[in-house]
Amino acid sequence: MQGSVADRLGTQFAFLNEADRLKSVLRATTLCDGSRRENTAEHSWHIVLYAMVLADQAAPEVDINRVIRMLILHDLVEIDVGDVPIHSANGAAHASLATQAAEQRAADRIFGLLPSDLAAGFRALWDEFEAAETVDAIFAKSLDRVQPVMANLQSGGGTWVTYNVSAEQLDTRVGTKIARGAPALWAHVRAQTARFFGA
Amino acid sequence: MQGSVADRLGTQFAFLNEADRLKSVLRATTLCDGSRRENTAEHSWHIVLYAMVLADQAAPEVDINRVIRMLILHDLVEIDVGDVPIHSANGAAHASLATQAAEQRAADRIFGLLPSDLAAGFRALWDEFEAAETVDAIFAKSLDRVQPVMANLQSGGGTWVTYNVSAEQLDTRVGTKIARGAPALWAHVRAQTARFFGA
Repeated sequence: MQGSVADRLGTQFAFLNEADRLKSVLRATTLCDGSRRENTAEHSWHIVLYAMVLADQAAPEVDINRVIRMLILHDLVEIDVGDVPIHSANGAAHASLATQAAEQRAADRIFGLLPSDLAAGFRALWDEFEAAETVDAIFAKSLDRVQPVMANLQSGGGTWVTYNVSAEQLDTRVGTKIARGAPALWAHVRAQTARFFGA
Repeated sequence: MQGSVADRLGTQFAFLNEADRLKSVLRATTLCDGSRRENTAEHSWHIVLYAMVLADQAAPEVDINRVIRMLILHDLVEIDVGDVPIHSANGAAHASLATQAAEQRAADRIFGLLPSDLAAGFRALWDEFEAAETVDAIFAKSLDRVQPVMANLQSGGGTWVTYNVSAEQLDTRVGTKIARGAPALWAHVRAQTARFFGA
């Protein structure tokens, strides 16, 4: 029995050590002070803090603890695939079939490092986030879209400048996703983006 | 009423924007690949993932969702105080009265940015973590101590080399804290440290 506990812990730590690589995946968004690009691990921490602070913006049936777990895991596939910025390739790359297929392969490999019970639970949460159909996933997606908007506002435009994003493109690619899970949140954030877009 | 919702959201985002600075606080520990020092935001993400993966090492009465929330918040005070490495100043600085007083002032300022209901809840969680008396806090502290050990093992010694740490000092400063919340975890990890310390 002791041997199997040690094997299980060895497998758990193999996954946790592999996860460390998410700290080296760079996103297009910078820190709020513009000093450097943000990495995906610290982004994931930040949006979990968003979930804790903005839980009152969620629909009453949202389970915020499930949202938090989803957000911790949601970008682990970027260890293999890298970050695909929302506004890159004129907005076409982020949800492309090619990106989705690569992320599925990454999920197979990365969650597959875990003991099978944990692998199944983590994969189900990630699949739920990706599908964006449950209230928990829809709220999690809202938070994931809000944080880069706040970073861009703080840093003087950020990826909106990089990718020459219009107010209409922000509405389509970001606003609709935020509004779906947190309508009052998007109304508030959109009003702040007006000072950048002059809308 | 609309005005007060906007005020509340403004306060929530002021806190979330300030929290961004945790990404610029550097720890003594490096990434597992040794490429650079880890920052406190990504460390916080990683140990929440530890909580999700190693939940089976917690005592049955531990509420893992509370542990996760605690770990998201536990190092926010480092925005003002910086990271005080466990092994620095021959192990004397980390829990010194001066460090504790500075962290209390930082908690007053940083959690004080939040709306009062959230400020009270977050501060209570942070106080509970610091006091390390509840089962949730004791398990959270175990995870906080395990992750740098794994990073040091991966990176060829890390802060054990930097601070010339002995096996006995690792036991005292780290092992006892891990074992208090997760005894089997420390037994497993300690066996792995033997190959570094030659013990």
